[in-house]
Amino acid sequence: MIEQDKIEPLMTQMGRDARRAARRLSGVTTADKNRALSAIADALLAAEPELLAANARDVAEARERGLDAAMIDRLILTPKGVAQMAEGVRQIVALPDPVGEITNMVYRPSGIQVGQMRVPLGVIGIIYESRPNVTIDAAALCLKSGNATILRGGSEVAATNQALATCIRRGLETGGLPADAVQIVPTTDRAAVSVMLGLHQYIDVIIPRGGKGLVSLVTEQARMPVIKHLDGVCHVYVDAEADLTKAVAVAVNAKTHRYGVCNAMETLLVHASVAEAFLTAAAPAYQAAGVELRGCARTQQILGGQVVAATEADWFAEFLAPILAVRVVDDLDAAIEHIETHGSHHTDSIVTENLGTARRFLREVDSASVMVNASTRFADGFEYGLGAEIGISTDKIHARGPVGLLGLTSQKFIVLGDGHIRA
Amino acid sequence: MIEQDKIEPLMTQMGRDARRAARRLSGVTTADKNRALSAIADALLAAEPELLAANARDVAEARERGLDAAMIDRLILTPKGVAQMAEGVRQIVALPDPVGEITNMVYRPSGIQVGQMRVPLGVIGIIYESRPNVTIDAAALCLKSGNATILRGGSEVAATNQALATCIRRGLETGGLPADAVQIVPTTDRAAVSVMLGLHQYIDVIIPRGGKGLVSLVTEQARMPVIKHLDGVCHVYVDAEADLTKAVAVAVNAKTHRYGVCNAMETLLVHASVAEAFLTAAAPAYQAAGVELRGCARTQQILGGQVVAATEADWFAEFLAPILAVRVVDDLDAAIEHIETHGSHHTDSIVTENLGTARRFLREVDSASVMVNASTRFADGFEYGLGAEIGISTDKIHARGPVGLLGLTSQKFIVLGDGHIRA
Repeated sequence: MIEQDKIEPLMTQMGRDARRAARRLSGVTTADKNRALSAIADALLAAEPELLAANARDVAEARERGLDAAMIDRLILTPKGVAQMAEGVRQIVALPDPVGEITNMVYRPSGIQVGQMRVPLGVIGIIYESRPNVTIDAAALCLKSGNATILRGGSEVAATNQALATCIRRGLETGGLPADAVQIVPTTDRAAVSVMLGLHQYIDVIIPRGGKGLVSLVTEQARMPVIKHLDGVCHVYVDAEADLTKAVAVAVNAKTHRYGVCNAMETLLVHASVAEAFLTAAAPAYQAAGVELRGCARTQQILGGQVVAATEADWFAEFLAPILAVRVVDDLDAAIEHIETHGSHHTDSIVTENLGTARRFLREVDSASVMVNASTRFADGFEYGLGAEIGISTDKIHARGPVGLLGLTSQKFIVLGDGHIRA
Repeated sequence: MIEQDKIEPLMTQMGRDARRAARRLSGVTTADKNRALSAIADALLAAEPELLAANARDVAEARERGLDAAMIDRLILTPKGVAQMAEGVRQIVALPDPVGEITNMVYRPSGIQVGQMRVPLGVIGIIYESRPNVTIDAAALCLKSGNATILRGGSEVAATNQALATCIRRGLETGGLPADAVQIVPTTDRAAVSVMLGLHQYIDVIIPRGGKGLVSLVTEQARMPVIKHLDGVCHVYVDAEADLTKAVAVAVNAKTHRYGVCNAMETLLVHASVAEAFLTAAAPAYQAAGVELRGCARTQQILGGQVVAATEADWFAEFLAPILAVRVVDDLDAAIEHIETHGSHHTDSIVTENLGTARRFLREVDSASVMVNASTRFADGFEYGLGAEIGISTDKIHARGPVGLLGLTSQKFIVLGDGHIRA
């Protein structure tokens, strides 16, 4: 336990150290970063016994505190989990380094050359809950993109996180990088989060990862920009000109592939002209999977007793469960109107064979991922080829959708002259 | 005057109307937008008498309220000013439309195609002070980039802004675009700003343009992301291997070309080995221009009575005046250390003939614009070829430096499949 009056100086010192580390990172090479990342992977494997022992302490405490089984399940670190963490870090070593890339370098009429150089954001603060693998994923992605990181994990895995911190520090030192490039807040006191959210002079961006309560708290209090993920109220719209075989495959996969994930479909929209044919074809699959259907009046008319009446709240709901809202709409405009009014701008998909309809949907649906004839479940950093993701952004600026290495960088202007002055 | 209890419903309605307009804008073509912009330019020229009359009322009221001459000068709209505004809009018509561009479209192992499409941010709120030309510049840039805008100008030019609003509305209607695509807040009551900053469900980004007081207020209160410009504490560093002729040209231009601008140099750093030669060569030009020099002890030693002693505060100062802080440093590291400690991450330039030194400066100086052998005065949207700028961002995420059309957009992911589902 750290005393209350020590928390603010501690966090401020961490901020200052992170800033200094970020400056040192601005000069390091890709090889330097990869060497440190490989050393972190090695350190994780070497420290397997310590990691499992620390994790066992967390799990025992969680059981004592009466956490439910599902929650405890997410805390548990196995030998396989340690190996996967190390493998994840090695995959990040293999990714191309985005930092330093110069693009769009052109001569201007004045004679200067102007272009843009990709650079790290600086210091990234990450506030997250439970799962210990986030600690390693986040640290590795931030390091590869040249950023210093301050990580603040959940209290449920405090001992595991401190053991992971030791591995990271060992890797950084072996690799010759500043040990403060990745820091883990050594207290789970909530006061530390409040202090952290005020350190805008040291922390350039905050990324919350966790439930809505955490994300709201961070958005409300942070004095620096936030890259966040709110809801995933995703839609599939089955158009009048859909191939119904593809439509059933996509609509069933989008709902039933996994329930508790942000890119699962929560509302299914169906064009009136194909509603009967499509819904009667899809309903058995939902029934077989045990999915509860909540439909509009027209859906109820078609499927009868298999459907309960949807309430207004159902159109806005992120069920994260085997529940699906279903609505019959009159046309593309009504589908887009529904999505824009009730959706969360995360991921929405249309099933259609009509090119013009697909073009309009792609253009006009204002979501981080917009799809044609594909399951919403593809909205994922690995599926998109980003290599890994630090999260999925539902913000409008900076980065939308899965945030990988590029989303942890920005571009500065660079100008080359030969003594050029402004006339 | 609008009654206090009417302000919140009024602003909320404006937000709702802007959101609806933004959705309509997502479907319009480049030709649609250009037609409306041309019609706005025409409407400005046609309304010259009304614009000048409205401006005369603002100027008379400003005089009555005892505003100082320099301030009043910035409010005045002349026939030439009206022509320039119209010409500015026509230049924006000529710029390429960034919206809809699809990049990086690749096939993934799963068979889906993934790429990114450039899209408007949505609804942009702009809060600004005095100069009436901002109203037209901002409206035209936001419209061209497909965004709906809510503009809130300063009370000093309230009548002028309302007359400009009439021209914009006329142009939008002539061009067949929603009239609510650009809205100007019809009250200068400060309560309207507070309400606006809370409308995160309708306004996607806020851009403050004005003094530090305004920017702080907006940053403090805004519930949505802010693209902002803080200080311009810009540096020129004259390296040991500088060509001193170029160094004098750049260092004199960066300070004396214009004083009251954010990209003017405020602190000059000089490598010790060339300090005497460089400073004695540059000092006469500063003296001729009436620039007050505030130097470190070594600078004083070299230039004697021409230099007053710099205080610690001078190294952080944005003078915006014929005052220059001068410091002799021991090497490149000390120069970068000074810039990172005292600068504002706006624009910094090195003068050197050494490639390795230039490479390090470009990489390690964490500013929105980093230059080699060029005057900091080049940090400008027109000079960079952006066509026009809505401001210069000193933020780290989204857009750094001059923000043009691209900075008013972001990229969403698009996915094309043929009934693809996740295995």
